[in-house]
Amino acid sequence: MNDSGKRTAFYAQSGGVSAVINASACGVIETALRRTRQIGKVYAGRDGIIGALTEDLIDLGRESAAAIRGLRHTPGGAFGSARFKLKSIEQNRAEYERLIEVFRAHDIGYFFYNGGNDSMDTALKVSQIGQSLGYPVICVGVPKTVDNDLPHTDCCPGFGSVAKYVAVSTREAGLDVASMARTSTRVFVLEVMGRHAGWIAAATGLAGRKPGEPPHIILFPEIPFEPERFLERVKQCVTDYGYCVIAVSEGAAYPDGRFLAQAGTRDAFGHAQLGGAAPVVADMIRQRHGYKHHWAVADYLQRAARHVASKVDVEQAYAVGKAAVELALQGHNAVMPTIVRKRSKPYQWTVGQVPLAEVANREKKVPREYITADGFGITAACRRYLEPLIAGEAYPPYREGLPDYVHIKGAPVRRKLKTTYQV
Amino acid sequence: MNDSGKRTAFYAQSGGVSAVINASACGVIETALRRTRQIGKVYAGRDGIIGALTEDLIDLGRESAAAIRGLRHTPGGAFGSARFKLKSIEQNRAEYERLIEVFRAHDIGYFFYNGGNDSMDTALKVSQIGQSLGYPVICVGVPKTVDNDLPHTDCCPGFGSVAKYVAVSTREAGLDVASMARTSTRVFVLEVMGRHAGWIAAATGLAGRKPGEPPHIILFPEIPFEPERFLERVKQCVTDYGYCVIAVSEGAAYPDGRFLAQAGTRDAFGHAQLGGAAPVVADMIRQRHGYKHHWAVADYLQRAARHVASKVDVEQAYAVGKAAVELALQGHNAVMPTIVRKRSKPYQWTVGQVPLAEVANREKKVPREYITADGFGITAACRRYLEPLIAGEAYPPYREGLPDYVHIKGAPVRRKLKTTYQV
Repeated sequence: MNDSGKRTAFYAQSGGVSAVINASACGVIETALRRTRQIGKVYAGRDGIIGALTEDLIDLGRESAAAIRGLRHTPGGAFGSARFKLKSIEQNRAEYERLIEVFRAHDIGYFFYNGGNDSMDTALKVSQIGQSLGYPVICVGVPKTVDNDLPHTDCCPGFGSVAKYVAVSTREAGLDVASMARTSTRVFVLEVMGRHAGWIAAATGLAGRKPGEPPHIILFPEIPFEPERFLERVKQCVTDYGYCVIAVSEGAAYPDGRFLAQAGTRDAFGHAQLGGAAPVVADMIRQRHGYKHHWAVADYLQRAARHVASKVDVEQAYAVGKAAVELALQGHNAVMPTIVRKRSKPYQWTVGQVPLAEVANREKKVPREYITADGFGITAACRRYLEPLIAGEAYPPYREGLPDYVHIKGAPVRRKLKTTYQV
Repeated sequence: MNDSGKRTAFYAQSGGVSAVINASACGVIETALRRTRQIGKVYAGRDGIIGALTEDLIDLGRESAAAIRGLRHTPGGAFGSARFKLKSIEQNRAEYERLIEVFRAHDIGYFFYNGGNDSMDTALKVSQIGQSLGYPVICVGVPKTVDNDLPHTDCCPGFGSVAKYVAVSTREAGLDVASMARTSTRVFVLEVMGRHAGWIAAATGLAGRKPGEPPHIILFPEIPFEPERFLERVKQCVTDYGYCVIAVSEGAAYPDGRFLAQAGTRDAFGHAQLGGAAPVVADMIRQRHGYKHHWAVADYLQRAARHVASKVDVEQAYAVGKAAVELALQGHNAVMPTIVRKRSKPYQWTVGQVPLAEVANREKKVPREYITADGFGITAACRRYLEPLIAGEAYPPYREGLPDYVHIKGAPVRRKLKTTYQV
């Protein structure tokens, strides 16, 4: 600790990014920069935890207030994120010791780690190892995952905006298909993210309010895929409504666990089929029923779509960032701020907290009671849960027809260590 | 002609729909309903021209003013569109005679046909056959195509909004990939529409303003695809920028004319590869360079994306609808309103007109001088052309987190003919 008693705050982004992870960054950074009595410098890791391991730190004090403010409306990970899971302490103690070495060199006393399940596990371990090495660091997780699969929080920042994107897109494409169905496309398949949990797939269900409105069929990872029952339903929809809109999760799988996206088809050279659950489902329908089809794979477009972000999501993302700093300064360690729902209608929420040990490496799937009995739709309870999360619009500013997203300067902090580290 | 001298106006949508074809409908209908001295009833065809052939007409006088007004912000084809090209008069004279029979039964004196090249050809033929059958109908085309390939108009309503969508999406996904590239995805491929002309592909180029900003490579239908040169460029981008974002047109093709999307790969059963240029390109890169990749196929999402429509596009779509009615009432026949650019910066435009005979069945491709010498990007001249077309936002109203798109009532007009017609 330096003479002033002030310690440095360190922020890092982890895992797949989202439309609002930078809004959480904004919450952390604006709050930390204001708490000048307790916090000295505010740094970020370039490319997440890799920046910490390689002592490649960004000095956030040298960014303009406008750039920091602009993070609130900018998608992606402004400082770089990383898919880099630290091994267990037993497997690679050196990695944790290196982290503490860098933290010690820069007097980092607060570690804010913005990510999903894995990252919460890492933050927990860093707090433990710091303790055991005689260099205590307050570690606070900042929840982020478009998959919405973190336990103990009502929802995860990042999810609401993806949910809004897929619901809006399903409604729009549904209107398109409906108008063409008589002479052209009768089946449209939209593939959405969520390899292990069907929250994003469920959100497409918000697009329709009345019976017969798209999506007509949702394929969840939670419900084993039965081709015959599915194909029968497709036919029924085309008969009843003239067309059929299907949302398929990338995680949809056969009863034996094989993903639809790895359906075993191979190209002429024996390479596995290029992937995508949507083309597999679309082709299955074409072969059986012969309907003309179209399919879309939204991929990164869905999780980067800040232009149609949920206002509630942006506010919650900022709030958990701000709360993380406040919790840390109150002396809470190894915790994560959570979203606590107080009411659904009208929607009321507040920020709570949970020990990291209870979050780490656990997944929250879509409960069976949120999925209709036939396995192809969402229930009223699911709709009640989801609807508030996509509420409100939070448009970014535009310049010359395009969103005016900010770029940070990323001024490096001068290295203090003679040692280097290879990741 | 009935006693009052007023004749009925008939409006039909044709071909693939767009985010703003209903804005043109709104322009036609609002204008026609106001011109009560010249126009009696205002009808639309259910499912486009098929509604005319089968005497399945919608009485627009029975829609609420709010529903008609709401068309301006609603994507898809509100009355149903059709992919139904009338054969030549020599091949199927009966089809044209049936049209005139229905028009005569309902005293239809004005035919407004909202579509692309093919539809302009049909509108022209209907005006000719009406003349020759002694039942003159004033036929005015209303331009619509996301492909932007109609000649004699500076741009086509529908294109500006797709252009905005793909430029916004490319910028957003680009930020996502940039933040993940160090440890994860290095290559992202976005497939966009435009089978014969690369206008939509070109519009992705608006996403980047500075050298090195995505997209790094655009694959146009106008430029024969050379795998070696392309793969070399991908590698160079990854070396220089750490990642590579590629926009590929669905119409991109090898020098021998084969589409990338039909690259000849077959599945285990000998079926042709399920399609999509993006997965083909992504796999080509993986095989050569081994980079981790993601790909997206926006498909209908791009042309239905009213939530991020271009304000200029919405205004032009409405304006050509309104102008079509005004031209008809001035006695112009077999013409199409056009967009005339008067200045690029600041953008100034007006509505002109062109004979249908000059538009029908012709395509406007991206000129070579709009594509950089290496064939992978857009020039400053292209940017000057495209930029005004995506200007301004025209957000739809939202309700409970989703765009509040209108549905028309679609009240049928009572049939007058005893005969039926099978399409």
